[in-house]
Amino acid sequence: MPPAIPVDLSHLPPMKDLTTTNITPNVILINNQCPSPRGRYIFERLVTHLHDFARETRLSTAEWMLGLDFLTSVGQASSDLRREMILLSDTLGLSALVDAIDHPRTKESTEGTVLGPFHTHDALEVENGAAVHTDPLGEALFVLGTVRGTDGRAIEGCRIDVWEGDSQGNYDVQYPDRNGPDGRGILYSDKQGAFWFRCVKPVSYPIPLDGPVAEMLRYLGRHPNRPGHVHFFLRKDGYDPLITALYPRGDPHEASDPVFGVKESLIVDYTTVDAEMAKKYGVKEGIAAITYDFVLVTEEETKQLRKQEALQAIKQMGRSLEGFEGLPVLDVD
Amino acid sequence: MPPAIPVDLSHLPPMKDLTTTNITPNVILINNQCPSPRGRYIFERLVTHLHDFARETRLSTAEWMLGLDFLTSVGQASSDLRREMILLSDTLGLSALVDAIDHPRTKESTEGTVLGPFHTHDALEVENGAAVHTDPLGEALFVLGTVRGTDGRAIEGCRIDVWEGDSQGNYDVQYPDRNGPDGRGILYSDKQGAFWFRCVKPVSYPIPLDGPVAEMLRYLGRHPNRPGHVHFFLRKDGYDPLITALYPRGDPHEASDPVFGVKESLIVDYTTVDAEMAKKYGVKEGIAAITYDFVLVTEEETKQLRKQEALQAIKQMGRSLEGFEGLPVLDVD
Repeated sequence: MPPAIPVDLSHLPPMKDLTTTNITPNVILINNQCPSPRGRYIFERLVTHLHDFARETRLSTAEWMLGLDFLTSVGQASSDLRREMILLSDTLGLSALVDAIDHPRTKESTEGTVLGPFHTHDALEVENGAAVHTDPLGEALFVLGTVRGTDGRAIEGCRIDVWEGDSQGNYDVQYPDRNGPDGRGILYSDKQGAFWFRCVKPVSYPIPLDGPVAEMLRYLGRHPNRPGHVHFFLRKDGYDPLITALYPRGDPHEASDPVFGVKESLIVDYTTVDAEMAKKYGVKEGIAAITYDFVLVTEEETKQLRKQEALQAIKQMGRSLEGFEGLPVLDVD
Repeated sequence: MPPAIPVDLSHLPPMKDLTTTNITPNVILINNQCPSPRGRYIFERLVTHLHDFARETRLSTAEWMLGLDFLTSVGQASSDLRREMILLSDTLGLSALVDAIDHPRTKESTEGTVLGPFHTHDALEVENGAAVHTDPLGEALFVLGTVRGTDGRAIEGCRIDVWEGDSQGNYDVQYPDRNGPDGRGILYSDKQGAFWFRCVKPVSYPIPLDGPVAEMLRYLGRHPNRPGHVHFFLRKDGYDPLITALYPRGDPHEASDPVFGVKESLIVDYTTVDAEMAKKYGVKEGIAAITYDFVLVTEEETKQLRKQEALQAIKQMGRSLEGFEGLPVLDVD
């Protein structure tokens, strides 16, 4: 590595003798060289909040180091099959918040929830009716969904990613000897907007207890148990992607989910597969069933909603909005 | 891993249907189970700023994922010999800010600056007069310091950690074939408070260009060059530890340091070792020299200053302070 790479310094504001108060505008000033207006705005807010956090807490050097070491350990615990950094975001409520900001819903549409750390990209496409879980210890569950637009019309060919933990509370990726996806599948809705598959009843389970995020929850005196649920990720061109989950009613952790994902509208009651259903879908009569109607919002409607809510939020800050791909950027004054 | 570990849920407030506005008080409520009042306060401010950041920027799912992936990569680039997470904190101005908060100075005392990512724990203790750098390409430099209290009295037996990059702009840890410390040493001040050593003239150098932090600087349009400097870390019982650095005057990057570390009081002029100095310290006449008087603040005085500044900052927030090892905690209302 050569000493000092050649740079043009002529346009830079001089920056020296920074104090606890003047450091923030100066860091923002130097970051404002960023050519992207969106980047400038994001870093302005990031630096402001980061510095305010340190000033308001009077953060000590020891605490700062503890925080950096913690973030480092979360990064180092992360891999394609273990998303510890997402789990950190989940347990701080950031994931649920970002989902709600980015995917505003109408009264008619299905609410979203957190993606969670266990979604993978290696699930296989399966036919409707397939068993997506091999778990021999699990209680059989039949899931029947329909996909519609807010106009009530069936959506055909919607891609539905489903995934869930097993009867022991583990996702496939939590087994060291995993040699492929299990408890996962990708389905497509039929002409009537319907899709159906077999899996196992989800159970409540703790977030991975051997990582830094679980350590943080222990420090905070929080329990680690998520209520049982089945994940759904619905995608169809022209519609806003829907990341959501269904929670069977009655789980003791329903109202204290460590990742803040439960919504009343996503809590479902188990029913039982009757003779007609058994015949129609080729599934065993008498096993537990979940049926749910998923309602998607169009991309266009989502854009409008997102912009409305952004305008409102920026107005509350007493600032003005410049459009940039629908996301706010720094006002020029 | 067993499903759901047994927990007492009876005392928990119910938490469901969280929206973009009510999620913040609810996350704070559940975090307030933390038995440490300091922990409760830090997490209250952390969650508030994290959520406000997302709300004010209308953070998109794609940007959120980019941010998490970036933090993960910073964690994964970090090791004992490469502190990329510290570098991130440095380049966002957080390190300089935390140092200023935690180590308030009086008018008489030496200003502190960032520790930086290149301090290690394997430097060897050397006698005064030793050469702490073997770099054969470097220009010889003699450093003579004294350590005093704000009362002007010499401090004997102060432990002084020194470290610097070489003539190529690299620290020892940046060489893959490093087999021990170089450009580092630990000295102790003598009865007169003096310490002295030989090293090489520091040169300006870029922060490591192959990591995620350098990528961030490129995105922001910022240059990566630190002005040349020699690091000092002074420790003596009864005094506040002083982490600082000396910057030889005239470096072109003096006023645009990417880690915001330069202070006018830490800029020094090179002098030349004269005959008397050469004889007294056993060093070659005619080589470059730096002399500097380091002034330490007592632990007690630092505590008082820290508390005064904390009281002021908390008052500005319109909140009240409860003492907890001198650091603010959440007010009870």
